[in-house]
Amino acid sequence: MSFTVADGYFVKDGKPTFVVSGEIHYFRIDPHRWEQHLVLLKRTGANTTSTYIPWDWHEYEEKKFDFSGKTNPARNLLKYIELCKKIGLQLIVKPGPYILAEYDLHGLPSWLIERCGKNARALDEHGNVIARDRMSYMSEEFLSHVFRWYDQIMPLLARYQESQGGPVTMMQVCNEVGLFQWLSGKVDYNDSVTKLHREFLKNRYGTIENLNRKHETLYTTFGDVVAPRGYVENRQQYRAYYDFHLFYRDYYALYLDILVKRIRTYGVDVLLTHNIPGWIYGSAAELPMLISTYEQVMKIRKDIVFGLDHIPEFVSFRNAGSDLACNKILQALQPSAPVWAAEFQAGTREHQVKNDANDMRTFYFASLAHGLKSFNYYMFSQGVNPKGKGYYGKTFYFQTPLSDQCEKSDLYEVTKEIGSFINRELENLLLSETKASVCVGFYKPYFCTELTSSQILKERKLHVEKLGLSLDPRFVREEIFFNGMLRALQTMNIGYDISDLENPVLDSLLKYKQLWVATTEFMDGTTQEFLVSYVKQGGHLVIYPAIPTLDEYLHPCTILKDGLNLQFEQSTSPRKIDAFGIDDVYTLLQEKQVFSSADRDAVARTMTGEVCGLRKQVGKGFVTALGFAFGYTTDDHLLIFTPRRGSTEIPRMTIPKMMHTERI
Amino acid sequence: MSFTVADGYFVKDGKPTFVVSGEIHYFRIDPHRWEQHLVLLKRTGANTTSTYIPWDWHEYEEKKFDFSGKTNPARNLLKYIELCKKIGLQLIVKPGPYILAEYDLHGLPSWLIERCGKNARALDEHGNVIARDRMSYMSEEFLSHVFRWYDQIMPLLARYQESQGGPVTMMQVCNEVGLFQWLSGKVDYNDSVTKLHREFLKNRYGTIENLNRKHETLYTTFGDVVAPRGYVENRQQYRAYYDFHLFYRDYYALYLDILVKRIRTYGVDVLLTHNIPGWIYGSAAELPMLISTYEQVMKIRKDIVFGLDHIPEFVSFRNAGSDLACNKILQALQPSAPVWAAEFQAGTREHQVKNDANDMRTFYFASLAHGLKSFNYYMFSQGVNPKGKGYYGKTFYFQTPLSDQCEKSDLYEVTKEIGSFINRELENLLLSETKASVCVGFYKPYFCTELTSSQILKERKLHVEKLGLSLDPRFVREEIFFNGMLRALQTMNIGYDISDLENPVLDSLLKYKQLWVATTEFMDGTTQEFLVSYVKQGGHLVIYPAIPTLDEYLHPCTILKDGLNLQFEQSTSPRKIDAFGIDDVYTLLQEKQVFSSADRDAVARTMTGEVCGLRKQVGKGFVTALGFAFGYTTDDHLLIFTPRRGSTEIPRMTIPKMMHTERI
Repeated sequence: MSFTVADGYFVKDGKPTFVVSGEIHYFRIDPHRWEQHLVLLKRTGANTTSTYIPWDWHEYEEKKFDFSGKTNPARNLLKYIELCKKIGLQLIVKPGPYILAEYDLHGLPSWLIERCGKNARALDEHGNVIARDRMSYMSEEFLSHVFRWYDQIMPLLARYQESQGGPVTMMQVCNEVGLFQWLSGKVDYNDSVTKLHREFLKNRYGTIENLNRKHETLYTTFGDVVAPRGYVENRQQYRAYYDFHLFYRDYYALYLDILVKRIRTYGVDVLLTHNIPGWIYGSAAELPMLISTYEQVMKIRKDIVFGLDHIPEFVSFRNAGSDLACNKILQALQPSAPVWAAEFQAGTREHQVKNDANDMRTFYFASLAHGLKSFNYYMFSQGVNPKGKGYYGKTFYFQTPLSDQCEKSDLYEVTKEIGSFINRELENLLLSETKASVCVGFYKPYFCTELTSSQILKERKLHVEKLGLSLDPRFVREEIFFNGMLRALQTMNIGYDISDLENPVLDSLLKYKQLWVATTEFMDGTTQEFLVSYVKQGGHLVIYPAIPTLDEYLHPCTILKDGLNLQFEQSTSPRKIDAFGIDDVYTLLQEKQVFSSADRDAVARTMTGEVCGLRKQVGKGFVTALGFAFGYTTDDHLLIFTPRRGSTEIPRMTIPKMMHTERI
Repeated sequence: MSFTVADGYFVKDGKPTFVVSGEIHYFRIDPHRWEQHLVLLKRTGANTTSTYIPWDWHEYEEKKFDFSGKTNPARNLLKYIELCKKIGLQLIVKPGPYILAEYDLHGLPSWLIERCGKNARALDEHGNVIARDRMSYMSEEFLSHVFRWYDQIMPLLARYQESQGGPVTMMQVCNEVGLFQWLSGKVDYNDSVTKLHREFLKNRYGTIENLNRKHETLYTTFGDVVAPRGYVENRQQYRAYYDFHLFYRDYYALYLDILVKRIRTYGVDVLLTHNIPGWIYGSAAELPMLISTYEQVMKIRKDIVFGLDHIPEFVSFRNAGSDLACNKILQALQPSAPVWAAEFQAGTREHQVKNDANDMRTFYFASLAHGLKSFNYYMFSQGVNPKGKGYYGKTFYFQTPLSDQCEKSDLYEVTKEIGSFINRELENLLLSETKASVCVGFYKPYFCTELTSSQILKERKLHVEKLGLSLDPRFVREEIFFNGMLRALQTMNIGYDISDLENPVLDSLLKYKQLWVATTEFMDGTTQEFLVSYVKQGGHLVIYPAIPTLDEYLHPCTILKDGLNLQFEQSTSPRKIDAFGIDDVYTLLQEKQVFSSADRDAVARTMTGEVCGLRKQVGKGFVTALGFAFGYTTDDHLLIFTPRRGSTEIPRMTIPKMMHTERI
């Protein structure tokens, strides 16, 4: 028996399979009801169930383990796994060490918290413990405890893995690595981190002179390097922070790699997974940033299939295209694995959210249309936390398909409907792919900001004005790229793909009608060069709202400007402009780039008649360069994105061509 | 003919009337279609239409006015008013000076912007102009221009007012005064402001010694007083800012009063109105703060009926009770006037919002149940901005009942349904009132923060830790009071009223079963004293999450603590507590107040067994004091608010009694 991946879908015993999974937490449910929950899940057409295995729950005192229910029947993991097998459900196991899951201390045993010293903890820039339950991932003390947990749980799970007859088809390694750093903006400066940071720089630069040249610093040795902290006051500090972000991407890879290597020593050969969070209050605008933080792991550990947490909270026109955008971005960074939702909203952890069954039906069907190739309802069953174990109190999740007492909600019927649809359309769903006329560039350096302007950090550490810049990368990627460009394309039903601009394939990009890139004032020279050659060899580049003139370290770099012969200067004028034959188009900023261009090339003008957008031929291709910022907030913006109806005379941003889906 | 107010509703020619109004902007619609729009509005059962009258539109060049369409048929205001009269619609006029309404420069003429000097503009603390279109309300230069505009428009409108045969039944004075200050956090320090600020302090304190004593300052004369600016670093600065907030409430009153006095000189005797904004991205949590900024105007100008802008954007469980809460708060501050929605969402100004007709039906019917006594659909008709006049470009509003071409949307049918319901149930809707068993205190000093932590201010100027406090008033009022207490009461269908705690009436409060008050660490002595006597005379006070020990200027003040004989100290413990017989209740903070109390009085305990909530008799009444912070995020919280089902033995926070509505 085998469970693996092919190009874009999961494969079970050689056949393409759609994982329809439901999350049920055995440790939050009366063991007498385990079977009933699993059977009711199976009846919706699901083939899989998923659960965390909380370290704290099974190592209830240090070195005292219970997997057979001797201290508490709800600890009888062995029985639960056997039940899954008996009922015929595949099982995804998530044994931590971190599970989060609104479990007290995120699933770490409380004795571990007491036992671990300061060296094992995430420490802030002053050396203070950041939070009781935040360990430093790579601390030897923490890892040695993790490995002792693994010594117990991994041999047990290995016996039940797919190659041994199942039911375990996937294992998740740790949970949402890096989440807290992003949410809180509290960066771990533990010595175990800063030491690795210095090694990272040494690997990257070779000599300290190279580093000094790039960062404009005066270090004598790598040993002198101090990890950046505090506010970004100048370009030097920005450079240090940029490399620190790249380091952190490596660091997460190192941590997950060390866990996986250890896991493999127990004979565990099952497919691995990890989940990527990022929806906040109904918006996924920051999820692409979270995806990008796993770029290194995706490169070095192809045996981990990353899944997305799709938790839109409520369905609205604001977020209706967000899952598609994130799916496409994940696909660009993880091209050979299926796009799957490791957490697929069903119910809510917050009682103030109403998870309407009809809205969820809409969301589920839309997700299938948006290329989702497997999912795990999170949560399928409600739970009740064991006394003291729930982070938010007793009840875990509301409005799930099943209550902890196995009462069905309206959502249960919806999951049946979805299950039957998937089982009927299985091959079409798995083997179809979308074709797109537009490719959109995904440029990861714009996403390196989580350490300087985190989600809920009260005071941002990065203000781009201090760097002599006017476009905040976060603003560009959220309002112009994600909520603007991608959402407008989706609304217009114009199919798009995403390409990782740092790993481009010229030939495949030339197959699209256009390549769209949202830019700030900086971009590395190699990518600039690539974009020039893309145009010269026949591509059509659409680029806005600023032509970069700096590289990613904010040193001058005008390869793109020079290569495409774009003459422009900064200008300030009223926000409204005329663009593509539409007057009074609202732009987000007064600052614009205005071009010296032939009249015939102009596609947009400011109120004073300056050319702020042009389209012209360069070599065998075209460039459409717009020097103004806009998202998608009015229907005039939508018109800009639209091919003009009933006419192809005056092209707008898009060259007419619609999306279609066909069986390959 | 007359149009006025009685106790809680509008009165037309002596009869209670429900204003069903639709906003149509004649200046954004082809004059050939004016009649068609108005007729289609009338057919929904509406009796009124409303429109801004943009100064810029009619004084198209300085001192050149057009109200008869001689320069542009869409400027023929006279014809439009006559049309309303002919069709039989009452008319609400909103002649500015500010109209906002996504009109360029907020409706101010562009020649005015050029002509006015720096002295007429809102200036920041460094004396720089804040924004091109932000005038200083009380600058003489600005007001002299406004009055010249009034010289033209007011006599014209006076001819059409209700006392002269109509159709004008109401006039709005300016628009959303103070909005920009709240949104941007950019405070106007123009000399015309700071001079009035010094006068305010002189009136308030009489002598500079009194001020110095309260503020702990060392001023020699009031002329030396510098208006507070920058960060709040200590209690002195907090005190100065607190009075600055009070001053600004007076300042808005002064401005509106001067406008009204001028308006009355033209023989205008029509009822006045003003609209209060505050919904942001689907949340009304800050609308009560905006309501509170008008407290002074409400006192001195009883001829202005304040209306709310109810723009929920989307209907969700998070915001479903928000309009009720805001209605009740407005009613508490403006007890004799009807609660009406000056802007009642219909369509949206942002294309990224979908204003679903079914959701809106739900919202409209809920609003009627929530005590709304009149409303104005905003917008009833879409518009197309004249070239250059739209702030966000050409199209004004989307998904309105009528498009600018008079095409009906699904929402049109909903407005017909609502219109017919209101006309059928007219007397029941107008004359019914709700009865409540719980009264909730509204304490305005907690809402004096808009100058120190505005809505979109990047860096808050107020961090309460710098004042030695742990509870941010904004946190208390948003999460504990508004989204917690009020939303939970609404969800439980427990009727509540709101009382202005600074203007309480003991006898009427004693008629309720309980008085609930959400508190921070400070409260003025008079209010503390009142709460003590409320309890001693038989009331039941529910108070949390902190018993105040300071007055509103952060000087020690323990009247409440002493009067109710509450012994407590600050303590820190795990977040989860046991309360009212429910274990593992999630609290928002580790910080708590723990009480010395008799065991029998304890209603809540920390994990270590400290009493963090008590209920006891004092005098003829009771106090339930809870020293922990919670909102409404889990169902355990809901249980706390709930009277225990099927039993009255162990009371929870509420004493059983449901809401009922009856005809008076």
